Amino acid sequence: MNTKMEQRVELSDEIWSETCWEIGESRFDPDQAVTAGSNFMIGNGYMGYRGTFADDRADQYPALVVTDTYDNADGTWKELVTAPNGLFTLLSCRGKDILWRQGGFGEYERRLNMLRGEWSARARWDDPGILVEEERFCSYDDLHLLTSRTRITALGEVELEIATGIDGKVWSLNGNHFSSLSLEEGPDCLEASCVTGEQGYHLVLREDALLRRAGGAAIEPCETASREGALCRVFRVSLEEGQALVLEKRVVLYSSNDLRDTSRITSDAARGPLPTQEEVRQATAGGLSRAVSRSWEELREAHRNIWKDRWDSADILIGGDRVAQTLIRYNLYHNVIAAPAHADHLPLGARGLSCQAYQGAAFWDQEIFNLPMFLFTDPETARRLLVYRYRTLDGARKKARDLGYRGAFYAWVSGDTGEEICPSWFFRDVLTGRRIRNHFNDWQIHVSPDIAYTVWKYVTATGDQEFLELYGAEILFEVARFLASRVHYRPGLERYEIIRVLGPDEYHENVDNNYFTNFQAQFVCRYAVEVYDSLSTDHPRVFDDVARRIGLERGERDAWDDIARRIYIPEADHETGLIEQFQGFFELEDTRPEVIRERLLDPGEYWGWPNGIAVETQVSKQADVTQLFMLHPKACSREVIRANWEYYEPRTQHGSSLSYAVYAICAAWIGHDQEAYRYFLRSCTVDLLNTGKAVSGGTFIGGIHTAACGVAWQIVVSGFAGMYLTRSGFGFDPHLPSGWETLAFTLKRWGDSLEVTLHQRAMTVRAREDNSREITLEVGSSEVALPPGQQVAVPLR
Amino acid sequence: MNTKMEQRVELSDEIWSETCWEIGESRFDPDQAVTAGSNFMIGNGYMGYRGTFADDRADQYPALVVTDTYDNADGTWKELVTAPNGLFTLLSCRGKDILWRQGGFGEYERRLNMLRGEWSARARWDDPGILVEEERFCSYDDLHLLTSRTRITALGEVELEIATGIDGKVWSLNGNHFSSLSLEEGPDCLEASCVTGEQGYHLVLREDALLRRAGGAAIEPCETASREGALCRVFRVSLEEGQALVLEKRVVLYSSNDLRDTSRITSDAARGPLPTQEEVRQATAGGLSRAVSRSWEELREAHRNIWKDRWDSADILIGGDRVAQTLIRYNLYHNVIAAPAHADHLPLGARGLSCQAYQGAAFWDQEIFNLPMFLFTDPETARRLLVYRYRTLDGARKKARDLGYRGAFYAWVSGDTGEEICPSWFFRDVLTGRRIRNHFNDWQIHVSPDIAYTVWKYVTATGDQEFLELYGAEILFEVARFLASRVHYRPGLERYEIIRVLGPDEYHENVDNNYFTNFQAQFVCRYAVEVYDSLSTDHPRVFDDVARRIGLERGERDAWDDIARRIYIPEADHETGLIEQFQGFFELEDTRPEVIRERLLDPGEYWGWPNGIAVETQVSKQADVTQLFMLHPKACSREVIRANWEYYEPRTQHGSSLSYAVYAICAAWIGHDQEAYRYFLRSCTVDLLNTGKAVSGGTFIGGIHTAACGVAWQIVVSGFAGMYLTRSGFGFDPHLPSGWETLAFTLKRWGDSLEVTLHQRAMTVRAREDNSREITLEVGSSEVALPPGQQVAVPLR
Repeated sequence: MNTKMEQRVELSDEIWSETCWEIGESRFDPDQAVTAGSNFMIGNGYMGYRGTFADDRADQYPALVVTDTYDNADGTWKELVTAPNGLFTLLSCRGKDILWRQGGFGEYERRLNMLRGEWSARARWDDPGILVEEERFCSYDDLHLLTSRTRITALGEVELEIATGIDGKVWSLNGNHFSSLSLEEGPDCLEASCVTGEQGYHLVLREDALLRRAGGAAIEPCETASREGALCRVFRVSLEEGQALVLEKRVVLYSSNDLRDTSRITSDAARGPLPTQEEVRQATAGGLSRAVSRSWEELREAHRNIWKDRWDSADILIGGDRVAQTLIRYNLYHNVIAAPAHADHLPLGARGLSCQAYQGAAFWDQEIFNLPMFLFTDPETARRLLVYRYRTLDGARKKARDLGYRGAFYAWVSGDTGEEICPSWFFRDVLTGRRIRNHFNDWQIHVSPDIAYTVWKYVTATGDQEFLELYGAEILFEVARFLASRVHYRPGLERYEIIRVLGPDEYHENVDNNYFTNFQAQFVCRYAVEVYDSLSTDHPRVFDDVARRIGLERGERDAWDDIARRIYIPEADHETGLIEQFQGFFELEDTRPEVIRERLLDPGEYWGWPNGIAVETQVSKQADVTQLFMLHPKACSREVIRANWEYYEPRTQHGSSLSYAVYAICAAWIGHDQEAYRYFLRSCTVDLLNTGKAVSGGTFIGGIHTAACGVAWQIVVSGFAGMYLTRSGFGFDPHLPSGWETLAFTLKRWGDSLEVTLHQRAMTVRAREDNSREITLEVGSSEVALPPGQQVAVPLR
Repeated sequence: MNTKMEQRVELSDEIWSETCWEIGESRFDPDQAVTAGSNFMIGNGYMGYRGTFADDRADQYPALVVTDTYDNADGTWKELVTAPNGLFTLLSCRGKDILWRQGGFGEYERRLNMLRGEWSARARWDDPGILVEEERFCSYDDLHLLTSRTRITALGEVELEIATGIDGKVWSLNGNHFSSLSLEEGPDCLEASCVTGEQGYHLVLREDALLRRAGGAAIEPCETASREGALCRVFRVSLEEGQALVLEKRVVLYSSNDLRDTSRITSDAARGPLPTQEEVRQATAGGLSRAVSRSWEELREAHRNIWKDRWDSADILIGGDRVAQTLIRYNLYHNVIAAPAHADHLPLGARGLSCQAYQGAAFWDQEIFNLPMFLFTDPETARRLLVYRYRTLDGARKKARDLGYRGAFYAWVSGDTGEEICPSWFFRDVLTGRRIRNHFNDWQIHVSPDIAYTVWKYVTATGDQEFLELYGAEILFEVARFLASRVHYRPGLERYEIIRVLGPDEYHENVDNNYFTNFQAQFVCRYAVEVYDSLSTDHPRVFDDVARRIGLERGERDAWDDIARRIYIPEADHETGLIEQFQGFFELEDTRPEVIRERLLDPGEYWGWPNGIAVETQVSKQADVTQLFMLHPKACSREVIRANWEYYEPRTQHGSSLSYAVYAICAAWIGHDQEAYRYFLRSCTVDLLNTGKAVSGGTFIGGIHTAACGVAWQIVVSGFAGMYLTRSGFGFDPHLPSGWETLAFTLKRWGDSLEVTLHQRAMTVRAREDNSREITLEVGSSEVALPPGQQVAVPLR
């Protein structure tokens, strides 16, 4: 008998796991409404539904966030819309509401089952004596379906009123998005019909509620009535002790964009006209009919099957560390539900669909933090994310043009069209109340080479030549073209430089020759030349198509080549091994985060541009030089990586959740085992242990940090297992945390799969039977070719 | 009888002039101590002595400012030293001090005689009844001599104590400069002997005081005693009504640098070792002996003769406007006394020798604002100022090197060595108390091309080929070399750009392609090629010398040529005629100074970098595009100048005293006569009417704005008379203010002189008899050649 599996593992004071496949809490803390709402959320890449309670109102931050609904309500923030809450249900007894949010339960539990993508909660009230058990999921089988089932058991004689319907009073971050919102009773359902104010999108949500006695007949509602902005059907039921009710709710929603042609999107106009409200309503009605025609168990089974498939390729097994096992699944889960697995014209948002924060939009995080997990476990999703970048090329071209450049300057904040939706003005100096111009949108240029670099990575890992020809080459050429128009040549020094940028470390704006940015630019120019040469030689017709489409000339290729050869790349110092983050960095005040923190006049001060406490110091917000190492593990020797890790680490504040993972990965490589594990835990618990304020200076900053979730996969696979891409397969340089007995995961390459299992002193790799080719493994100085169906064991150290 | 000459002209509520050769005040206002001390100051280019009273102590801002004594007392500011006050004299009667600063006179007058460079004051006290009349000057005949004569007349029976000597408690802006200061009684004199703390300079000042009864014998002091930090000889005298005393004081001072070799200075080290204290003392002693050996009248006569010569060439006669007549002389006077006419290794300071503010150092003001008056009236002084730039080339080379450039990057604040003495940190944000990094020293690069441009102007106006060969070419080549290392080439656009600068308008830092800066850079590169070609062809030996000295290569000349041809110069818009101050300026918020002033949270806020209220608006601190027109009157059509004047003028705050003159000059050209005259008055009264605070946020910002003084000449001659340089002489495009009957001045060219007289409808120009060649005049479309001794009259309009 495996006793371990029955023992609860405590992830925090609040959160535990029993099976390492779920998280749960047994104590209700109303102060954690925001954090728990995010942690326990469910979703399916089309919609996200926060893990709040059925009776929660706007002040408890419930939200049904719907993708592809970008709309600007306040003139500043273009963001996704929160739909009316179709799972709203309010219990009362003799005129007194029985509210989850007021606590006072006899027993209580909330769970998120990551294996199945299901939320559940149970609570026992003593007065009146009832036990309520709810389960819900956003269906992966029908992405437009959100459904719940609630069982209410009487623990004594009780008269209950159950009001269930749609709450139209939604929580919305930056203003009301709806120019009209109507809640009406429809045929066998309730309906919310909304029109967004800026874009005029229609959103229609229908709710079907079925209440029946457990093992008995359906109960009819006695009226349809409003409950403070929620339109509900009201049921009144008397129960004897032991009797139970079951409420099934099926919620279906469609928005205008769901009905538009997505096959040829490169700009909003290319999607064709908006459908009418009636068309959206019909789509919703059709969806609800389908959902109602199937039993709740059937719906759930179809949903669970898809999750099973996902985990088959995505799961990471960690033996000997149940905390790590649970954490890694928690993080992978959130990366999966954030990804638009159904569409290739949508971004993976920095907060996924956990809320509206960060505008439901993609940052460089998408390619660098979220995507690699998919690339090696679910490459179709990785491809979709990159096709999204292709479909948004016009937005990137527009941004480049607007700022006086050529090619594709990808948006810092990229929504549906790829046009820049990062406002220039949103910061306020808390000390003076003065607004501050941020330069994320015009100076943080590395997003473009980061995307082109990921094209390289995707094509290398998958061998997807079709992608390269249809999409990748054009992205790549346009980014190289942008870089060629963005670099400056220094005649005296006979080199190219990149001036006035913001690297990954956002505390230092307006800097020159940022190591990360210049290196990425060089890499991309070199790759663009390579693709130009190979395509034009080997696939001249394909090449001509691309070249004609974007007006590419031979001279541009030569310019990229010249840039790749002569761009200035700061070198590691011969003695110290240190690489300067940007020109002049080492001349800044050399101090530490804890020292300059003392200089804060207000805890809410922004540390960066233009005059924050970090600007004139060597204190960085997040990894920058080390960030480059993460992308190019072989760019520098281990000694150089170690020197820079040791230099920059104590100077890094980790003001971004993107930072921990980078330090974890590099620490693993250089044998800083304890630090690696510590940073792994910090990165994996950014959300789970988040006890910080969710609302700061009036801005909601809660929600799931999807990049930290996605990169968890990389910490384990690229960091601890030391996996890196080689031309003919993979290399490994493992450094397992000392407490890990085993580590096992699947890797996909060229459509084939490898099953990798690591122990402290050996690793085995098995090639699946149905693999199509030999894959070469590099471990230390040895190289092994692994044909289909074969397994190899390699001793370590 | 000329009644006009006897009528007082009121320049302000306080200040009048009787003869248009002096300013005077008849009301004593203790609140104006700082301003009046500057306005009434005397000086001779070696020392400046503020127009305070003989008994003023440090809190009244008296100062004897001595050139060539740059020393850093507080670790931030390197500045000139204020010497002990050798003119200190304190009257008392029966133990009660009779103090000027306490006022309470029966009658009172203070005058500055600009014609003679003499200060005088008189006051009548009623109790005790005495009349005190003092006159003083800094001798132009012996630059180390400061002298005064005071006549004290008894208006009744009175017993006076007269304590006269040296006050060692000096007012010093940024800390005490003296590591030691001793006041001692010497042979027939008192002596102050000081050593500066940073540089270890010696400064020895001796004072001789001779008191005698009017028309009678000398009086011996009864003791030598201290008066609160002043070492004085004390005389006690009884006077009958009508009896008078005369006190003559001769003060001589030398500092270490006065004795060092200045013939080969290019850096401090090249000046050789510091003299000993004894050597400085001997120099002072010798100077005092010479001064004592001559009568006070002789000393004064020698001084006056030099002033007479200066005015012979410098004076501007304005008929019909006595206010303008007085103002112009007041301004020319202050420009003259600020200029180191005795040395070519010293700068003309932005506040001259009126105080220590602005560090006694040269800014771009020296070449662009101060120098042109000398160039056309006293070219030897202009030459000295440019030789100073030659002698400080090493400092400029060091700055370029330190910042990663080549050639000569002249200091924004240039003292004796030419090294940058502008601190990086001195601003504080008044709202947060946080320090602000200013970028005057590293981004305001136009100072280098401004100096090289002035080399062109000087050589063109004087034909001084020797200067070009010895000094000018090297300055020019080194500046062109700097520019070549500072420009960036944009491969996509096939043009050079200048990135991240601060133009003349200091509210907009970190801008690209500032019109002024790029235009000046192009001009200089073009001129450098021209000089390179002509020198190497016509004077190969000279050229080889220069080229060898600085390691110049042919390829550099070609690089300058390429830059001159392909640097991006913003063009006037075809429709509006507008030229964009820098890239993106027209996209900034379009508002006015009076509008954004309302946004101030504190009147002391800095409007500029990094987050001042003007930064993100089109509000400029000072002229920028129009500033370029001032330097290149023919660069654009009158229509373009008008369009830009009219656009930028209402958007300019005139936060710099350099701004008014530019708008005055350009207004004259485009026929905005009233505006031209209004800006002329504003520019000429920057100091005279200064009622603003002299101390702001703890920083003393008083003192004479020498640039505004120097540019007064240009407003009249370049603006109203419309004078511009041509290849063969001068052009004129006059627009006299309507109230001016005549305007007459002298112009020097190639060592020859022209006397120019303008009336509203005609002008006459006379070439001096001893001119050596024909000078061509261009007026409108007509051209006249003017041989020596000839006169020509040209009708206007």
